[in-house]
Amino acid sequence: MLKILNQQEIEKILSELDPVPLITEGFSAYSRGEAVIPPVGELLFEDPPGDVHIKYGYIKNSRYYVVKIASGFYQNVRLGLPSGNGLMLLFDQKTGELLAVLLDGGILTDARTAAAGAVAARYLAPDQISALGILGAGVQGRLQLLALKPMIPCRSVWVWGLNRDELEAYRRDIEPQGYTVNTTLEAQEVAAHSNLIVTATPSRAPLLQAQDLLPGTHITAMGADTPEKNELDPGILEKADLVVADSRAQCRVRGEISQALRQGRLDMEAVSELGEIILERKPGRTGEDQLTVADLTGVAVQDLQIAKAVYEYQS
Amino acid sequence: MLKILNQQEIEKILSELDPVPLITEGFSAYSRGEAVIPPVGELLFEDPPGDVHIKYGYIKNSRYYVVKIASGFYQNVRLGLPSGNGLMLLFDQKTGELLAVLLDGGILTDARTAAAGAVAARYLAPDQISALGILGAGVQGRLQLLALKPMIPCRSVWVWGLNRDELEAYRRDIEPQGYTVNTTLEAQEVAAHSNLIVTATPSRAPLLQAQDLLPGTHITAMGADTPEKNELDPGILEKADLVVADSRAQCRVRGEISQALRQGRLDMEAVSELGEIILERKPGRTGEDQLTVADLTGVAVQDLQIAKAVYEYQS
Repeated sequence: MLKILNQQEIEKILSELDPVPLITEGFSAYSRGEAVIPPVGELLFEDPPGDVHIKYGYIKNSRYYVVKIASGFYQNVRLGLPSGNGLMLLFDQKTGELLAVLLDGGILTDARTAAAGAVAARYLAPDQISALGILGAGVQGRLQLLALKPMIPCRSVWVWGLNRDELEAYRRDIEPQGYTVNTTLEAQEVAAHSNLIVTATPSRAPLLQAQDLLPGTHITAMGADTPEKNELDPGILEKADLVVADSRAQCRVRGEISQALRQGRLDMEAVSELGEIILERKPGRTGEDQLTVADLTGVAVQDLQIAKAVYEYQS
Repeated sequence: MLKILNQQEIEKILSELDPVPLITEGFSAYSRGEAVIPPVGELLFEDPPGDVHIKYGYIKNSRYYVVKIASGFYQNVRLGLPSGNGLMLLFDQKTGELLAVLLDGGILTDARTAAAGAVAARYLAPDQISALGILGAGVQGRLQLLALKPMIPCRSVWVWGLNRDELEAYRRDIEPQGYTVNTTLEAQEVAAHSNLIVTATPSRAPLLQAQDLLPGTHITAMGADTPEKNELDPGILEKADLVVADSRAQCRVRGEISQALRQGRLDMEAVSELGEIILERKPGRTGEDQLTVADLTGVAVQDLQIAKAVYEYQS
C-alpha cells in the first residue's frame, strides 16, 4: 500500500524522531561495506543557477531502496520561494514496488544533513568550546546549530552571512533558543572566536584560510556537495591533523577534499571515513590542540535511514 | 500546484495522446544537442534479480526537468505482480519545484518505449513486410506490435516466448486486434519468417545469429538496457548495413552496440543516432535488401516528452 506523505505530515513525524542515531547507524553500515551507493546523479542549470542531486542506494539484505531528489536554486529567495526542494522515494528491494512518496520539500535532507553534523561533532569536536561558529545564515546554518544543542553546552554563537538582513533574521530565530548570537560580515571573525565551526554555504570560493583558525578547531564543512563548490582553503585540509569524509568515494570528486586533492594538498590515504571512526576502526580526535575537518557531501545511506524511519513510524 | 496522478488517470490521458510524434521530437532535440542527459543511474539486485534505472535530464531553455525511476524484477510474475514498475517526476527547471508525481507503475515507460520502436520502424523497416517477428511475449512484446499497427499493414505475427502458456496468452490478447499469431519456442523460427523483428526480452545471451535472418530484415532491439543484457549476436551488428542507436553515449556502455563494441565487432564511428536520421543528417534505410538494426536503450528525453505531455494534458 503506497503512502504519500506531505511536508506537514513529515514535519510532525520528524519532530518525534531522533535522526542522530539513525544517521550514526547509516554511516556505520556504509563504512562496513553493507551499503550499495552508486555515484550521485547531478543536473546543473545556469540561468538561473541551480543544482539537482539524485542520491540513491540500499543496504544489502534489507527491505528498502531509496531514491532522493534534492535541488538548490539559490535565487528562489528573490521569488519568495525556499532555495531547497525535493522529495524522497522508498521502494521494496525484492519487487521494485513503490512504498512511499515523501513530499518533504527538502526537510528530510535538511534533517539528515544536520544530524550528520552532530555525529561529526560528537567524534571530532574539542571538549572545551569557546564559541560555536556558523558560516551561512540559511536553513542549515540554523539546523546545524540546533542539532549540536543536546551535546554541546556552549551557548555563544558567531555567525557569518551575506548581509545584515539575513544575519538579523538569524539572530531573531536563534536567540530564543537560548543562544547569544554575534553576527559578522567577515568570515575570519567567526574563526577568531570559535573552535567548533560549521560551514553551510553554497560558496564556490574559500571563506576561511588556515591562518584564520584557533588552535584545536574542528570544522564541519557541509556546504560543498559538487566538484565546484568550495568553502575551505585547501591549506586547511593540508594542515589538519585529521580529515574525515562522510564517503571517500564521493569526496574524491565532490566537496573540500576533492578541491585539496586536485591541488595536490592532500593524500586520500590519510582521509578517514566518519563510519570508520564510529566503528572505532580509525581514531577520532585524540588531543585538544588538533585541527580536524569533517567534509560532508551527503550520502544516500543517510536518505535511506531517514526515509525508512519516517515510513515505519506508526506503520 | 503539485499534480499527483495515479495509474488509472494516466492510462486515461495516455489513451488520448499519440506518443509517436512526441518521441520523434524528443530524439530530434537529443540529436540536435539540445538535451542534457547524464548517464543512467542504476541499482542492481541479485536475490531476487532486479534492476532499477534512474533516467533524468532536460531540454535546454524549456520549462521542465524529469526524473524517471523504472524497475524490472522478473520473478515478480511468481508473486502475481507485474515485473515492471516505476514512476516519473516532473520539476520546474527555473526553481526546482516539483510539478507532477506520475504514479504510472511503468506504463509511461512502456508507452514511450513502444513509440520509439514505431519511430525506428518508420525510418528503417523495409517496405514489404513478410511477417512481424516478436521475441518476448511480455508487455513490450504486445505494445511494440500495437505501436507498429498504424504504419505497417502486415497482420501476420511470429512470436517467440519462454513457454506455451505465455505464448497462448499472447495469442489470446493479440488475435482480437486483427493479427494472425504464430507461436514458437525457437527464436530462429521467428527470424525465418519475419523481416521486421522486435526483440523485447531481458535476455543475457544472444537469441538470434546473423545466419538466422532473412535478407532485408530490420531488427529493433529494445530489451537490452544494461551492459549485461544481450539479445543479438554481435555478428548481426557486424554484418548490418546500418546500425542505429537511440543515444550513442548510452549505447557505448549498454545494450547490443556495447556488446559488439566490447568484442571489437563494430566501429562506433559507423553508428548513427535515430535523431540524426529523423533530422535527415544521416540516411535511414536506402534499399530493400539492407540489414538494419536499431538499438534502443531508452533515453530520458523520451521520459521527458511523455511526462510533459501527460502533465500538460487539460492543464
